[in-house]
Amino acid sequence: MSVNGINKIAVIGTGAIGGYYGAKLSESGLDVHFLARSDVDHIKNNGLVIKSDKSNDINLSNVAVYGSSLDMPVCDLVLIALKTTANEELKRLLEPMLGPNTILCSLQNGYGLEAQLNNLFPNQPIIGGLCFICSQKSGPGEIHHQDFGGIRFADFNAGSNHFKQTMQVFTDADIPVQISESLDKARWEKLIWNIPFNGLSVILNANTKDMLSDKSSRQLIKDIMLEVIEAANAFDCDIELDYADSLINLTDGMTAYFPSMKGDYDASRSMELDAIYNAPLKAAASKDIPMPKIKMLFEQLSFLNH
Amino acid sequence: MSVNGINKIAVIGTGAIGGYYGAKLSESGLDVHFLARSDVDHIKNNGLVIKSDKSNDINLSNVAVYGSSLDMPVCDLVLIALKTTANEELKRLLEPMLGPNTILCSLQNGYGLEAQLNNLFPNQPIIGGLCFICSQKSGPGEIHHQDFGGIRFADFNAGSNHFKQTMQVFTDADIPVQISESLDKARWEKLIWNIPFNGLSVILNANTKDMLSDKSSRQLIKDIMLEVIEAANAFDCDIELDYADSLINLTDGMTAYFPSMKGDYDASRSMELDAIYNAPLKAAASKDIPMPKIKMLFEQLSFLNH
Repeated sequence: MSVNGINKIAVIGTGAIGGYYGAKLSESGLDVHFLARSDVDHIKNNGLVIKSDKSNDINLSNVAVYGSSLDMPVCDLVLIALKTTANEELKRLLEPMLGPNTILCSLQNGYGLEAQLNNLFPNQPIIGGLCFICSQKSGPGEIHHQDFGGIRFADFNAGSNHFKQTMQVFTDADIPVQISESLDKARWEKLIWNIPFNGLSVILNANTKDMLSDKSSRQLIKDIMLEVIEAANAFDCDIELDYADSLINLTDGMTAYFPSMKGDYDASRSMELDAIYNAPLKAAASKDIPMPKIKMLFEQLSFLNH
Repeated sequence: MSVNGINKIAVIGTGAIGGYYGAKLSESGLDVHFLARSDVDHIKNNGLVIKSDKSNDINLSNVAVYGSSLDMPVCDLVLIALKTTANEELKRLLEPMLGPNTILCSLQNGYGLEAQLNNLFPNQPIIGGLCFICSQKSGPGEIHHQDFGGIRFADFNAGSNHFKQTMQVFTDADIPVQISESLDKARWEKLIWNIPFNGLSVILNANTKDMLSDKSSRQLIKDIMLEVIEAANAFDCDIELDYADSLINLTDGMTAYFPSMKGDYDASRSMELDAIYNAPLKAAASKDIPMPKIKMLFEQLSFLNH
């Protein structure tokens, strides 16, 4: 089935994000091709399972899954759902599946990811997707979906038709879609949540609920959010200060959650410090915004990242 | 033996600090009375041992050790070497051993401790002693002395004779003594070391050498030291910014050390957050110095202190 010319979709990274959204798109009838690592054979033999706390489970069988991107077909849309710590491999990984009009959509966390893609592939259309989802890889070929699931999209090269097409593909797959006029604003808004919760969950060995139940860490989370908002507004994002409170209130209402960085740290994987901390710090510094608490968090995490 | 009228000495808290200095004073021939907790009976039966990496061990037998301060005699000098987390007990603990001229000497870490003593005992002479020592309680009745051992003293009520007498007592016991003209300056100088190293050793689960070997944490330690110096100088301490570098270099040359707060945390004891973080933060705030990184460290530690 083809939606507005998008039929073949590549999902680069079959983890908590790529596995979940790839399965949803596949279920909607699209031709989805997954790049996986350790569990390629398991998925080939047993399929891909989404266990959801919030909706029906998904069981995909006969999954088109690959251990090497060299074996993957040219696609209409490529979803980038690797950890950013593997981004130096992107050029090599993506090249085999690119045609002249292949759309690249980054579902990664962090800052400056679309600009990075544009440096690597200056002729491809590029989209940023900010995933508002609580999910984690719970086993080989298995994703545990805990809460939410919407994506806020923004276009890197505004005005082309590919963006509208891509939104339609996600909407048809029953994925809640929001559209942001400003990619920069969408990225900064996501960072307002990611910067405090990801790093502090590692430093304090705690989930979102524990951190928000304690007066000191709740205050620290808010202060760090305000630092991000100050930086965002230096980039004309025009975010109100009480956006911090509304994000904290939203998180109060959500399931007790260990952000992905905590999972990476506990599994002795590299943490996504460059994309989530270093890149925003550099961007803010270019506007003379020092973000002292975020710099401190970055330094603490850098020590632990050995 | 009596030195300048000081003969009977009470040591309140027979841990890494009180045990070490009390043993040195006892060895020099003074009449030292120790208040202990869990290991009273052990010390009564087996004595008090200082195992030193840097000088001869000390083995004290027939130690005058007490489980209750009610049993202790009136003394000429009281050394306060409890954790500050027990300071609400000081009035009750100290009263039995106070005569009209009994000198109180705080060997605790933190800010505002002499003023606290002065509130409790407005008629006693008070001295502050800042201990530059690496030592830890290594077992019942046993202290492991790893490095250094000097004390920087300053007078709370300048100009009286008791200060000179006390200095003589410590000098005669072979304890390196420095005298500071300003108690405030001496306290802030000690905090420049204590504030970064104590808290970060808990947060990063690391000793001094590990923290200084990593570029990020080394920078963070320096930045935190500079926040303390800025606050100190708002109190006219006139401390040069490169004092931070000289303290870091000094620590480079010292044995890999877990500060006392790390020991408290690992043993699930309360950490000395009020004296080492909250009191300096309040003092700095009174001069409009925000110390954002120290506030963040305090908030992180407060979360972990549950």
